[in-house]
Amino acid sequence: MGKARHFISFDDLTKDEIYHIMTRAAALKAERARGQYLRPHLGGRGLGMIFNKNSTRTRVSFECAITELGGHAVVLSENQTQFSRGEPISHSARVLSRYLAALVIRTYAQSSLDDLARHGSIPIVNALTDEGHPCQVLTDIFTIREKFPDQPLEKISVAWVGDGNNMAASWIQAAALLGFPLTLACPEGYEPEAALLAKAGQANPKIKLLRDPKAAAVGALAVNTDVWASMGQEQEQQVRARAFKNFLVDSALMARAEPGAIFLHCLPAHPGEEVTEEVLESPASVIFDQAENRLHAQKALLEFLVPKL
Amino acid sequence: MGKARHFISFDDLTKDEIYHIMTRAAALKAERARGQYLRPHLGGRGLGMIFNKNSTRTRVSFECAITELGGHAVVLSENQTQFSRGEPISHSARVLSRYLAALVIRTYAQSSLDDLARHGSIPIVNALTDEGHPCQVLTDIFTIREKFPDQPLEKISVAWVGDGNNMAASWIQAAALLGFPLTLACPEGYEPEAALLAKAGQANPKIKLLRDPKAAAVGALAVNTDVWASMGQEQEQQVRARAFKNFLVDSALMARAEPGAIFLHCLPAHPGEEVTEEVLESPASVIFDQAENRLHAQKALLEFLVPKL
Amino acid sequence: MGKARHFISFDDLTKDEIYHIMTRAAALKAERARGQYLRPHLGGRGLGMIFNKNSTRTRVSFECAITELGGHAVVLSENQTQFSRGEPISHSARVLSRYLAALVIRTYAQSSLDDLARHGSIPIVNALTDEGHPCQVLTDIFTIREKFPDQPLEKISVAWVGDGNNMAASWIQAAALLGFPLTLACPEGYEPEAALLAKAGQANPKIKLLRDPKAAAVGALAVNTDVWASMGQEQEQQVRARAFKNFLVDSALMARAEPGAIFLHCLPAHPGEEVTEEVLESPASVIFDQAENRLHAQKALLEFLVPKL
Repeated sequence: MGKARHFISFDDLTKDEIYHIMTRAAALKAERARGQYLRPHLGGRGLGMIFNKNSTRTRVSFECAITELGGHAVVLSENQTQFSRGEPISHSARVLSRYLAALVIRTYAQSSLDDLARHGSIPIVNALTDEGHPCQVLTDIFTIREKFPDQPLEKISVAWVGDGNNMAASWIQAAALLGFPLTLACPEGYEPEAALLAKAGQANPKIKLLRDPKAAAVGALAVNTDVWASMGQEQEQQVRARAFKNFLVDSALMARAEPGAIFLHCLPAHPGEEVTEEVLESPASVIFDQAENRLHAQKALLEFLVPKL
Repeated sequence: MGKARHFISFDDLTKDEIYHIMTRAAALKAERARGQYLRPHLGGRGLGMIFNKNSTRTRVSFECAITELGGHAVVLSENQTQFSRGEPISHSARVLSRYLAALVIRTYAQSSLDDLARHGSIPIVNALTDEGHPCQVLTDIFTIREKFPDQPLEKISVAWVGDGNNMAASWIQAAALLGFPLTLACPEGYEPEAALLAKAGQANPKIKLLRDPKAAAVGALAVNTDVWASMGQEQEQQVRARAFKNFLVDSALMARAEPGAIFLHCLPAHPGEEVTEEVLESPASVIFDQAENRLHAQKALLEFLVPKL
Repeated sequence: MGKARHFISFDDLTKDEIYHIMTRAAALKAERARGQYLRPHLGGRGLGMIFNKNSTRTRVSFECAITELGGHAVVLSENQTQFSRGEPISHSARVLSRYLAALVIRTYAQSSLDDLARHGSIPIVNALTDEGHPCQVLTDIFTIREKFPDQPLEKISVAWVGDGNNMAASWIQAAALLGFPLTLACPEGYEPEAALLAKAGQANPKIKLLRDPKAAAVGALAVNTDVWASMGQEQEQQVRARAFKNFLVDSALMARAEPGAIFLHCLPAHPGEEVTEEVLESPASVIFDQAENRLHAQKALLEFLVPKL
C-alpha cells in the first residue's frame, strides 16, 4: 500500500502540501455551508481516535470530520483499552493498521507517535502531545488566511503571547516551513526549547523571542495566547500565575497590534486570566470561527493523508 | 439559521407540536416494523450526547434514533471532556453549535441546559436533569395513546405513585399542557414543588396531589411509578424505604384502577420494592413497549427539532 | 421474529455452519482487499457492544465489522451504564432487544450471556468470558485453514501450550465439534476443567492433555500460546511465572513441530515471557494476519447471526 503519510509535526508536510490542504479546507467549508455534509471519500473505513488526555473540541471536530468524510471514528480512551497491559507499541501499531485507515492520537510523548508511524502502515495524526499541536496551528493559519484573503501569508505577522508550550512549538515549526514573521513573548523559564528556535531561525530569520508581550504585539495582524496552565499542570497554577501576570492579553495590548488585527485562542479560555472578557468578545476575536475551522482543516488533512479507495 | 427549537421541558412545545410528534412517532414505528430503519433526515450531521450521569436506555435509544435518522451520535462522558476544566458554558455552547446539529444532555442542573440554549444556536434536548425527564414522559404519553387509540387523551386519567421527583415534575407539566387528569400520591416530604403544582393547577384543575396511593389509582387508566431512590440518592435508601413503604404498586393497587388499566415504569425497576414482580409481568404491564417507544418518540422529536438540510 | 441464533460457545453452531462462516469470511476478506469495505447487510441497525473488561482488538475489530456491514456499534462500558444499578438481567435483555439487532459482550460470567439469550430476542455474541473466547478460536481456525488451504482441517494437528484458560476451553470445544487433533500442555493446577475435557474426548478422541510442552508440539502444524496471567490475574503474576517457567514457546519448541508449522497468539503478547521475540518475529508467526482475521471472521459471523432485513 505504499508508505503512509503522517502529520505528527509540520516536518511531515511540504509548504505546497499545506497550501493544498488549506485550499481544500476552504472548499469543504463552502460545501458544508451549502448543506452538503457527507462525502464518500473514506468509504466506510474505520479511523481510530486514541485519547490519553481529555478532549472536547479535538474529539468532536475529528469525529465529525471523519463521519462527514464517509468514515467511522473508533474512539478509544486509554482506560478502556489494553495499551496499559504492556503490549509492545510495535504490536499495537501493526494490529491497528490491519483494521483502521488512520490513527488520530492525543497523548503525552510525541515519541509514541513516531513509534506508531515507524511500525504501522497507516497515517498517524498528532491530536496534541507534550511537544506539539500541529492540527490546531494548521487551523489557525487557515483562519488567518480566511480573515486576510488579500494578503500573502508571508507578509502576515503573528504574535504568540504567553507559554512557550506545545502550541508555541508548532507555531515555530509552521513559521519555519511557511516563512511568515512570528514574534513570541514568553516569561522567563517558560520559553520554547532553544534548539527548536535555533533550527527554525535558520529557515526563517523572522522568528523572534521577546520578553515584553506588548512589544510582541507591535506589527502583528494575529495575536495568539493560551491558558497559563495546560492539562496536567494545574498544580503549578499559582507559580505560573505569578510568572505570567504581565502576559494578559487586554485591549491595551491589542491596541499595539496592526489595525484590523485578530485575536486567536485555541480554547478553553479562562476569561480574566490570560485574556480579558472584553478582548474575547470583541470584534477582533475570531475564536469561534477558529474553533469551527478545526473541523474543516482536519477534513482536508484526512482527505489528503488517507487515499481514496 | 433562525432560532433553534429546544425540548428542555414541556414549556418548549405547543400542544399541537406534541401531537404532531406523536403522530410521526407512530409512523416511524410502523416503518421500522416493516424493516425500514434508515432515513436520510439528518444527512450525516453529528449530534452530541453528553452524559454526566449513567444511562442505558436513554443512551441506546437516542444513539439508535440518531443513527436511524441518518446522523452520527458523538457521545461525550463528563470525565472524557474538558467541561470540567472551567470553560464558560457560553463558550462550550458556541463551539459545539459549530460542529453539531443538536445536543442531547443528561446532567444535574437544568439551568445548564438553559445556558446552552441561550448561548448556542442548536436544539438542546433534556435527557434527564434534576428537574425533569420530558423525553420519558413524552414517550409515556405516546405509549398511553397507543394502548388506548379510541379514547381522547383528555379523558385518560393518569396516576403517579411514589416520589415527587423529576419524572413527576414532567408529568405535571405535560398534564398542564395537554389537559389530561393526573393524580399523584407522594409520601410526606417527597412531594413535587408546590410552585410547580400551583402553576400547573391553573392550566389544568384536574391535577391532584394525594397521600394515599390506592386512592390515586381509582379511576386511572395508566398507573406509573418509579424507583424510590434515583441515581445519586442511593445513600438515602434506608430513609426513603421507610417513607415509601406504603407506596408499593401491587395487584391490590392495580385492582383499584379502571378495568384494562396499564402499568408504566421508566425503568430500571427494583422488583419487590416499588412494584411487585407480579404487576411487572402482568398483562397490564407495558414496560417493554414503553421502553421501545423511547426510540420512536425521540426519532420523531429529533426530526421535528432538527430541520432537514 | 423467530428464535435468535447465538454464538456464546461452539455448542451454538453446527460444523456446517462453522464452515459456511469461514467461507464467507474468506469472501469478505477478498472483497475488502479489493477496496470494497461497505456492505448493506445490517441496514443501519444498531448492534450493542458491552465491555466489562478492557479490550482493544476485540473492540476495534467488532466495531469495524459492524460498520463495514452497514450497522452502527453502540459501545457501552460498564461504568457508563446502569447495569450496576441492580436491574434484573431479564429486563435489560428485553429492553435492549427492542433497540438493537445483536449484542456483543465481554464480561466475567458466561451465565450472564446465557441469561441475556434466554430473556432477550436478539443474537448474543461472546466476546470473551471467564469460560470461553469462541470468536478468537473461530478466527484462529479460519487462519489455520487460510495458511494450509490444501489440507483438510481434520488432518491439521493443533498444539496449545500454557494456561488451560478460556482460550483453551474454546479450543477444546472447537476440536470436539470440528474433529481436528488437539494436544494441550498445561502446568499442574492450570489444566482445563476435567468435565469439559471428558465430554470433548467422547466426541473427538484426538484431544490430549500432556504436561510437556515440547511433546505437545510434536506433529503440530499450528502452535498456540497465551499470556501467563490474563486480565484480572495480574496479582497472581509471580506464582504463575514459577508454574509456567517451562512453558516458553521458543525456537527449540517450534523445531519439534511439523516443518512449515505456524505460530499463533491471540495477543497481547509479552515477548520474552510466554514466547520469545525470535518466534514472534519469525516467518512462522502469523500473529498479525491472525489479528486481522478477527475482523473478517466476525463480519461473517454477524452476517450469519443477524438476518438481512
